[in-house]
Amino acid sequence: MSNQLTETRTSRRDRIVEAARRLFFEQGYVATGIAQILQESGANSGSLYHFFPTKEDLLVAVLEVYRQMLDTAVVAPAMERASDPIEQVFAVLHGYRLLLEATEFRLGCPIGNLGLEIANSHPQAVRLVAENFDGWVEAVASMIRRAAGRLPAGIDPDDLATFVLATMEGAVMLARSHRSLDPFDAAVSHVRDYFERLLEDGSNWSKAQSRKPE
Amino acid sequence: MSNQLTETRTSRRDRIVEAARRLFFEQGYVATGIAQILQESGANSGSLYHFFPTKEDLLVAVLEVYRQMLDTAVVAPAMERASDPIEQVFAVLHGYRLLLEATEFRLGCPIGNLGLEIANSHPQAVRLVAENFDGWVEAVASMIRRAAGRLPAGIDPDDLATFVLATMEGAVMLARSHRSLDPFDAAVSHVRDYFERLLEDGSNWSKAQSRKPE
Repeated sequence: MSNQLTETRTSRRDRIVEAARRLFFEQGYVATGIAQILQESGANSGSLYHFFPTKEDLLVAVLEVYRQMLDTAVVAPAMERASDPIEQVFAVLHGYRLLLEATEFRLGCPIGNLGLEIANSHPQAVRLVAENFDGWVEAVASMIRRAAGRLPAGIDPDDLATFVLATMEGAVMLARSHRSLDPFDAAVSHVRDYFERLLEDGSNWSKAQSRKPE
Repeated sequence: MSNQLTETRTSRRDRIVEAARRLFFEQGYVATGIAQILQESGANSGSLYHFFPTKEDLLVAVLEVYRQMLDTAVVAPAMERASDPIEQVFAVLHGYRLLLEATEFRLGCPIGNLGLEIANSHPQAVRLVAENFDGWVEAVASMIRRAAGRLPAGIDPDDLATFVLATMEGAVMLARSHRSLDPFDAAVSHVRDYFERLLEDGSNWSKAQSRKPE
C-alpha cells in the first residue's frame, strides 16, 4: 500500500514534469502558463504547488530530466548509427538535423532555447543549463578521445567538443529562423572540413618529417 | 511647424522602439510587459497603440533597427580594429566577447535571443530575424571574399560566414550559461585553427604540385 502510494506520487510528479518539459520546449518557459501545465498534465494546482513551490523549481526538474535523457536521446542513437568515433560526433549533429526536419523547424535544442531565455532571470536553473551543456561536451569529448590517436597532438578533446556544441547550437538557431536546413548544412559542412583537415594532419608523416632539423 | 510636428512624431516613435529594444535585449520579448515599455519610453498607451497596434509590430520595428545597426555596431568597429580581412572576421567575434565581458554575461547577441524565443510564435518577426542573420553573413562573407585568394579553391564565402555566425551564436550561448568566457574562447580558438589550416592550404604550392598527374 505504501509502495503503491509512493508510486502514484512519483507518477503524478512525473506527469507534471513531462507536460512542462513539452510545453517549455514547444513554446518557451515564459510563454507557458501554469493553467496550461495543469491542463496538459491533468494535475490539480494543490499537487503542482506541493511538488513545485515556484515555476523555477519546475524548470529545474525539467532540466534534470534532460540531463538524464542525454544518453538515450542524443548519445545512444549516434552510437548506433556509426561505429567510428568521429562519425559518431557527426551522427550526434545529424540527430538535430532529423529533429529540425521532422518538426518542420518547430523544435531544435531544448537546452539552447531555455538557456538564452532564462540566462538573466533564473540563476539556479541557468546552472543546470550549464550542467546539461557539460554533459553533452563530455559525451562528445569521449568520442573524440577514442579517435585522439588520429588527431594532431595538442588538440584538447573538451575544447574541440565545446566548439562542436557551439556550432551545433548556432546552426540549429539559424535553421529555425530561416526555416531551412541550408544554414545548418553549411555550418556542419565546415565542421566536417575542419575534422578532415585535423585527421589529415594527424596522419601526416611527411609533415612531421619535414619539421625535423636539417 | 509641420516639420517640427513630424520630428516630434518620429522621436516619439523612436523613443518607444529604443525602450523596447533595450528591454527585449535585457529580459526577452515575452517577459517584457507593455506597462514597462510605456514607463521606460515615457510614452502614453494611445501613442504606443497608434504606432504599434500589436506587440509583434513593435518587435518588427526593433528588428528593423538592429538591421540598420549592423554596420555601426558590428562591422565598423571590426574594420577599425583590424585591416587584414581575416583578422576583421575575428575582430567581429571579439566584439561579442567584449560585450559579454562588459555586461558580465547579461547581454550576448540580441538577434539570437529573439530568434529562438519567437521562432514558433511570430512568423513575421522571424523573417526579420533571418534577414538580420543574412546581413551579418553578407558582411562577414565580404571580408572573407577580400581574402579569397589566400583560401583554398572551392571555399564558399557565404557558407564559411554562415559557419562563423553559427559558432559565434553558440559560443555566446555557452558563455552566458556558464557565466564564463572559457567556452567562448574554446570555440573561437577552433575557428581560428580552422582558418589557419585553410590559409596554410591556400598558400601550399607543394600540395597543389603533388596533385599533378605523375
